[in-house]
Amino acid sequence: MKAVIITRPGGPEVLEIQDRPRPEPGVGQIRVRVCASALNRADLLQREGNYPVPPGYPADIAGMEYAGEIDALGAGANLWKTGDRVMGVIGGAGHAEFLCVHEREAMPVPARMSWDDAAAIPEAFLTAYDALFNRLDLQTGETVLIHAVGSGVGTAGLQIAHAAGARVIGTARSPDKLERAKKLGLDIAIDASRGDWATQVESVIGGQYVQAILDLVGGNYLEGNLRVIAVRGRVVVVGLTAGATAPFNMGMLLRKRVTIVGTTLRARPLEEKIELARQFSGRMIPLFETGRLQPVVDQVLAFDRIRDAHSLMQSNKTFGKIVLRWA
Amino acid sequence: MKAVIITRPGGPEVLEIQDRPRPEPGVGQIRVRVCASALNRADLLQREGNYPVPPGYPADIAGMEYAGEIDALGAGANLWKTGDRVMGVIGGAGHAEFLCVHEREAMPVPARMSWDDAAAIPEAFLTAYDALFNRLDLQTGETVLIHAVGSGVGTAGLQIAHAAGARVIGTARSPDKLERAKKLGLDIAIDASRGDWATQVESVIGGQYVQAILDLVGGNYLEGNLRVIAVRGRVVVVGLTAGATAPFNMGMLLRKRVTIVGTTLRARPLEEKIELARQFSGRMIPLFETGRLQPVVDQVLAFDRIRDAHSLMQSNKTFGKIVLRWA
Repeated sequence: MKAVIITRPGGPEVLEIQDRPRPEPGVGQIRVRVCASALNRADLLQREGNYPVPPGYPADIAGMEYAGEIDALGAGANLWKTGDRVMGVIGGAGHAEFLCVHEREAMPVPARMSWDDAAAIPEAFLTAYDALFNRLDLQTGETVLIHAVGSGVGTAGLQIAHAAGARVIGTARSPDKLERAKKLGLDIAIDASRGDWATQVESVIGGQYVQAILDLVGGNYLEGNLRVIAVRGRVVVVGLTAGATAPFNMGMLLRKRVTIVGTTLRARPLEEKIELARQFSGRMIPLFETGRLQPVVDQVLAFDRIRDAHSLMQSNKTFGKIVLRWA
Repeated sequence: MKAVIITRPGGPEVLEIQDRPRPEPGVGQIRVRVCASALNRADLLQREGNYPVPPGYPADIAGMEYAGEIDALGAGANLWKTGDRVMGVIGGAGHAEFLCVHEREAMPVPARMSWDDAAAIPEAFLTAYDALFNRLDLQTGETVLIHAVGSGVGTAGLQIAHAAGARVIGTARSPDKLERAKKLGLDIAIDASRGDWATQVESVIGGQYVQAILDLVGGNYLEGNLRVIAVRGRVVVVGLTAGATAPFNMGMLLRKRVTIVGTTLRARPLEEKIELARQFSGRMIPLFETGRLQPVVDQVLAFDRIRDAHSLMQSNKTFGKIVLRWA
């Protein structure tokens, strides 16, 4: 099978499509012929040699999500049949023509959805769903602040929070991204390129009404998060594009009785991945079928343009997901 | 009535006992004749002018807990009768001969317990109970690390965690405090005055098995907390004696999927204080009556020695609480 190989740590030029042995499904697993996948920041970090790949996945093939057709069943697998359309996240090696996962980790592709759209769902929407409901316990009527609202996880979180009846404030560093986010349900748009975003939030909503924050930026956004968060507010940190280390005012943490939680999907044990996939299948897939949620695809590129795809993501100019397809 | 007055911001010498009007109980309130109270770090900060007193409490009278006899009932109060022995926390003005609280905030003094012992319970044990169960969700069989285990909240948390079937690791900066903590159930004693405590924890328990941390120190203990905490571990920060601000490695927060929560009892709204007092009355008071929990009193001083009491707490040499009594 074909796979995108990281030939050595480096820039997009180190990526090459090469042949690799097709994997065989183990007990309880399914093998999926990947029709489409998508790109994530962790893929770029892995390419640079800066992301520890979870045990059991090759360091030289990136790729954390897929949509495709089941082409073989491992011993004991009985949840699906060959030909079923599935999608999901995987710890690595998703940028290949075939992959194997435990059958209970896979989720059904929403009815009538294209492979390209389906491939834009798993990582972004599972991350956002888990962050908003399992980590933040977001409630109808609450106000949630989403940083980098134009990103893959940002646009997913925005739609889920909007569907759940929350008021959504979003930050981005581009007026264009904010305009597009408004069409997905964004209530209050904050342009972080126009001075301090926390001051803007304070002036727009006039006090401390932000009960929850979905932070995909990290770094010194921490300081602003603690300023605008309400008493007993919750912050989930999912991404660190602005840096991993920042000064932490724990006095504010105590006075406001804030909860800060870090999360990541990739390194989770099987039982947690299964639990999340089953929750999401039951609660979110129907919302795609009724149109309440929609995958946000910036561009679809063939896998032979994988280097362009990596460069595009590094440009920070995309809105939503960069989808990759084999044909 | 007599009260300890903070005559101006400053050291222990600014404290004076003066006469003040006796408060009258409002609707739903009880008035308590205070037999004993105790000292807290926040009282010292308030004396220095560095603690914002919650609305409704005078800035010039400290004191956050009490044990005493009900001497008057406000309109509609019907949970208690005059002469009942009660104890509890209060937002301020506890260092006085009388105080008024909502009747549902008060808790019964455990049967046959002295006033001095009862006064050592509320702030330390309510804080520890709330931190361990409501913030950390501590479970039987888990390992909890308690910093400053010889302090009031530390000795309370140690006993509660031990009673709940958790393994308790404790840090302190004195071998003597650790020896005394062992008698209260401490499983693993770490002397923080002998080099890096986190390295000691790692070498003693050989891996990342610390599921929960009760941190009464703050400051750069944050770095060690993130090092020793288990995947999906929880940290509650209750005190900041080592400082409020520290560099925060959010990369570690994400990778380990850690939850950090700040908490404080004092500034809570009435409904939360009542809920906590009722929980504690139902679950913890019986454990004092069977002897599983015991107040830890370092010294009992008459209120006319309030300056000595403040100096004693500043010395950091006490083990458990400094109790103050009117007679």
